[in-house]
Amino acid sequence: MSSTNRQQLANAIRVLSADAVQQAKSGHPGAPMGMADIAEVLWNDFLVHNPANPKWVNRDRFVMSNGHGSMLVYSLLHLSGYDVSADDLKNFRQLHSKTPGHPELGYTPGVETTTGPLGQGIANAVGMAIAERTLAAEFNTDAHAVVDHHTYVFMGDGCLMEGISHEAASLAGTLGLGKLIVFWDDNGISIDGEVEGWFTDDTPARFEAYGWQVVPGVDGHDPEALVAAIKQAKVETSKPTLICCKTVIGKGSPNKEGTESCHGAPLGDEEVALVRERLGWDAAPFEVPAEIQKAWSAVEKGAKAEADWQSMYDEYVKANPAQAAEFERRMRGDLPADWTEKTTELLTQVDAAQATMATRKASLQSLNQLGPLLPELIGGSADLAGSNYTIWNDSQPISKSDAKGNYVYYGVREFAMSAISNGIALHGGFRTYAGTFLVFADYMRNGMRMSALMKQPVTYVLTHDSIGLGEDGPTHQPVEHVASLRLIPNMSVWRPCDAVESFVAWRLAAESDDKPTSLILSRQNLPHQVRSTDQLADIEKGGYVLFDSAETPELILIATGSEVALAMDAAKKLSEEGRAVRVVSMPSTDYFDAQDAEYKEQVLPSSVTKRVALEAGIADYWYKYVGMHGAVVGMTSFGESAPANQLFDYFGFNVDNVLDVIRGLD
Amino acid sequence: MSSTNRQQLANAIRVLSADAVQQAKSGHPGAPMGMADIAEVLWNDFLVHNPANPKWVNRDRFVMSNGHGSMLVYSLLHLSGYDVSADDLKNFRQLHSKTPGHPELGYTPGVETTTGPLGQGIANAVGMAIAERTLAAEFNTDAHAVVDHHTYVFMGDGCLMEGISHEAASLAGTLGLGKLIVFWDDNGISIDGEVEGWFTDDTPARFEAYGWQVVPGVDGHDPEALVAAIKQAKVETSKPTLICCKTVIGKGSPNKEGTESCHGAPLGDEEVALVRERLGWDAAPFEVPAEIQKAWSAVEKGAKAEADWQSMYDEYVKANPAQAAEFERRMRGDLPADWTEKTTELLTQVDAAQATMATRKASLQSLNQLGPLLPELIGGSADLAGSNYTIWNDSQPISKSDAKGNYVYYGVREFAMSAISNGIALHGGFRTYAGTFLVFADYMRNGMRMSALMKQPVTYVLTHDSIGLGEDGPTHQPVEHVASLRLIPNMSVWRPCDAVESFVAWRLAAESDDKPTSLILSRQNLPHQVRSTDQLADIEKGGYVLFDSAETPELILIATGSEVALAMDAAKKLSEEGRAVRVVSMPSTDYFDAQDAEYKEQVLPSSVTKRVALEAGIADYWYKYVGMHGAVVGMTSFGESAPANQLFDYFGFNVDNVLDVIRGLD
Repeated sequence: MSSTNRQQLANAIRVLSADAVQQAKSGHPGAPMGMADIAEVLWNDFLVHNPANPKWVNRDRFVMSNGHGSMLVYSLLHLSGYDVSADDLKNFRQLHSKTPGHPELGYTPGVETTTGPLGQGIANAVGMAIAERTLAAEFNTDAHAVVDHHTYVFMGDGCLMEGISHEAASLAGTLGLGKLIVFWDDNGISIDGEVEGWFTDDTPARFEAYGWQVVPGVDGHDPEALVAAIKQAKVETSKPTLICCKTVIGKGSPNKEGTESCHGAPLGDEEVALVRERLGWDAAPFEVPAEIQKAWSAVEKGAKAEADWQSMYDEYVKANPAQAAEFERRMRGDLPADWTEKTTELLTQVDAAQATMATRKASLQSLNQLGPLLPELIGGSADLAGSNYTIWNDSQPISKSDAKGNYVYYGVREFAMSAISNGIALHGGFRTYAGTFLVFADYMRNGMRMSALMKQPVTYVLTHDSIGLGEDGPTHQPVEHVASLRLIPNMSVWRPCDAVESFVAWRLAAESDDKPTSLILSRQNLPHQVRSTDQLADIEKGGYVLFDSAETPELILIATGSEVALAMDAAKKLSEEGRAVRVVSMPSTDYFDAQDAEYKEQVLPSSVTKRVALEAGIADYWYKYVGMHGAVVGMTSFGESAPANQLFDYFGFNVDNVLDVIRGLD
Repeated sequence: MSSTNRQQLANAIRVLSADAVQQAKSGHPGAPMGMADIAEVLWNDFLVHNPANPKWVNRDRFVMSNGHGSMLVYSLLHLSGYDVSADDLKNFRQLHSKTPGHPELGYTPGVETTTGPLGQGIANAVGMAIAERTLAAEFNTDAHAVVDHHTYVFMGDGCLMEGISHEAASLAGTLGLGKLIVFWDDNGISIDGEVEGWFTDDTPARFEAYGWQVVPGVDGHDPEALVAAIKQAKVETSKPTLICCKTVIGKGSPNKEGTESCHGAPLGDEEVALVRERLGWDAAPFEVPAEIQKAWSAVEKGAKAEADWQSMYDEYVKANPAQAAEFERRMRGDLPADWTEKTTELLTQVDAAQATMATRKASLQSLNQLGPLLPELIGGSADLAGSNYTIWNDSQPISKSDAKGNYVYYGVREFAMSAISNGIALHGGFRTYAGTFLVFADYMRNGMRMSALMKQPVTYVLTHDSIGLGEDGPTHQPVEHVASLRLIPNMSVWRPCDAVESFVAWRLAAESDDKPTSLILSRQNLPHQVRSTDQLADIEKGGYVLFDSAETPELILIATGSEVALAMDAAKKLSEEGRAVRVVSMPSTDYFDAQDAEYKEQVLPSSVTKRVALEAGIADYWYKYVGMHGAVVGMTSFGESAPANQLFDYFGFNVDNVLDVIRGLD
């Protein structure tokens, strides 16, 4: 293709982006116009994908980490033949359109991940590349490479400034993710203006320090240079590659290119007209000349690519029928056929064992029980494996030299861990978990939010869940964290009180296909609670009656995790005094809230207004269940450094204080 | 001092640390034992400090970013002569001791910042170095350098893996913080074992890429090499320095040194005995031989150092009395004498203007009003200055070439921004603020938590506070964030409804000396609310009656921020229908909760149980105020990408829906 033609193809992106942002009266034209040439070369010469089947398992993954440049993605999808029409582009940033302000997973065919929160796209891509490499190691044979694709990433200066880019790139270098190819949009501009005042890293040197191949100084508007750079990137298979593309932001806009004024606002009608003039673009808004449309179309090429892969895959199926069936199950995300049967049996066993143990240890026990049923399980911890108990009997670390395995040593990189986990989940073929101390959920909070927003079933193993952590003190004692995780929409939160509830929580987490789960686990031992068959079955309703009075209760104690035993002790004492007390164990408020009104009324009858909630965390959340006339035995301050048992006493988590609080309501 | 003697001095740290961890039965002996030689050289040959006055304004700052090695700090403080006794060391990790598990600000004389959450100590230190440099530029004269000290940091591999280390080090390089000197404890071990499996960065190359001076390959157990490295670091005044110290973790422990087994657990009585044997240390636990104690003492040296500085400062006072008085006011953290008078007048002006404006713009207006009164004000934004409105009329950026100023272009580095802000506040001489979109509070959440834990009055300017952000969509629309910030102990949260409440919030934030404030500000315009003099005065109570019925209300609407106007519209409509309705504006639940019971009962009479809270954020939090029989018009899901007015309608923030909800309670 001649360079002139290529420019026209790239200009289609520029004009579509400028027009759509103008039409929406909001958006970011600068990045799409600046990266148009890079996108054109990548998509037309290299990207292996099939617009007719955005879910083709062996497609290359494309991630725009600088997600504000979403119109670049929508333009590419529209031009190459995905189900994204000119009308969809006209609806850019409108309610329920296929073209929201940032790329949103599930809204647009061809969008691989939701990006916008800077730095997370590149980390998602690291997860995708990990998934590709490990899945390939597991399923490919000498004859058939059924999993064999690249992961391409666009990112800007903003992503590079974010700390998560360090965490993700460092780990990608350590693991030698050779099929990860990243384009740095080196335009020298961020929102506040020319970056030289706040961003002076030698980025090529930085990435070389991570063990990446770096292709420096590429003219991001020169198709030949870009072709050469991408070829070089693909040749290096033992290291990820950073291609440093010098670009002009907003290129094509005579008065705004090269400045921050085109970053995050419409160019204005006049300037858009000047763009047309400069680029020699005569077509009306959202119209693309037929020859350009044709040159862009990836429909035929894509169909052929998938058909070729399919022929190879068909051979693979013949040669390895069982392996192929398993591969398909994994990629569909189906649970093993015997899942329900086996896990039900396991639950009975856990209940029968009546074990006293820390729930973090119960989590390990659950991993050891569920892991063998789930070859798709992959997980890790942010350098706290021995504390989080994330390494189970069959854990096998992946490394640069050996991709086969199911354990990732994430290092002390919580935020990247969450976003990489999202990437692994998005790729498909795995169920994934990620461990750290609960208090450090703070470090990865937006990654966890993105799991919830994208409906990715990542399981977060969050141990050392309260002042029960003890001597490490307030920096390490989560206080507000359980409540604050409950506030994230679509995040399931479980704080089990014993090994049995821990198993149920893990089982539900492993079964989830549309939401992440936070498992909130104790450092210290918790006693087994005895349950009837009905109670055992009710655990998965999130809240249930664990102890009850013969008559209608006059008082309900609601507790979670380590405070359930305390509630039971207090209830027994009160029962001995002849009071009618109920204890509700409420390991998951979101599961409980999702029950029907009848069940909820049964567990928490509205007539019983004398209620006390017990949780070694910030009290405020619990007024939802105890009302203004109830009370909460909870935390109202940070913790302290001391042995755990002393702290529980000091902060009022003992029977005497609970009884005092209850009497205060009488 | 001979090398043998030096070793004995360092061994005092080793034995004290091993003994204290053993006594506490928990803690981290590895880092103190591994870094003992570095600490010995730094503290005995270089650190300028005065044990008798830990608050001496011109002391060198020392930060242990790998805070789990707290026994190193406590040993140093004890040995050099601070008010940290052998008994205090024996009480390591006990309730209310001076020696908590991690260094905690305010618990121990000589501890400069609370560390433990990895990577934040180095970022605090960057803030301290910024403060030192800018304060020096402001107050020093050619004749007198009243502010002239170094900031020294110890950090380990964990800090280096954390993303925040990238953000902080990158900005430190850009700003050329020449008096920041960092020691990397390169021991090759993290909690999960030998770091080569998950951390293979070329760290010297990485820091060179940030524009740092790097002193590579220093033997961290060779005093002469360390002396030479520190001298080299001090000579370079235009770049921060990283000294790469190769060390053996747990050095001195015959069976555990060099392995992760000595990182985070007591060595065991037997091994501690072997440490004594290996080091030739005969003294009983917590006893230090007199000659070693004497060699360590910095009491005389420190007294002289401060006295020398004081003489110089006395001259400075004579030569520049006004400037000196201002310097002292700034370092004491006192507000200007005319503060109350002037700000009271300003409040009247703001109220009289009756302006309709976005509260983010009202925040800028407040900065323009309060800024001239507060030369100690310094702040910035994470690359969103034009959106957060953090640049006010007198803003002057600091840069590598010019330290004088009051504005920091933080770049897209939210987490570092928060921790650097803590460092600036900790240094003294400034009041500081930090801006980003509210949704990205997630990225710096643990830094904000550390502001609250350390009682540092950092003001967070968090704009674009709800679905009112509009087209950028759910990744950029905070939903759970206001509620989740309210859960952090000692964090004040204000969500003002108009320019008047915004001013009050800013004034209180600027007045604070013991807690941070989160200002939650709208992107979109909000109308002025008319108030009586009493109402105006009541704003600072956090919640007050903004609209009332003549008789006792049968219904109370509680609202914050952009939903106050909606509550007022609904209330007026209901009043027209003859219903007795009250509207409570509740910009700050923490200020409201801190009022006496009488006031709270006056505003929210317990007899009125028909209550509806309105806030465009997750509903759950509000049951604390509306009870189980009330209702909340809030969010229960993530937002969407669309123009803001459509979104408010779509999610039920309109009068019709509010009236429906109210009727649902009837």
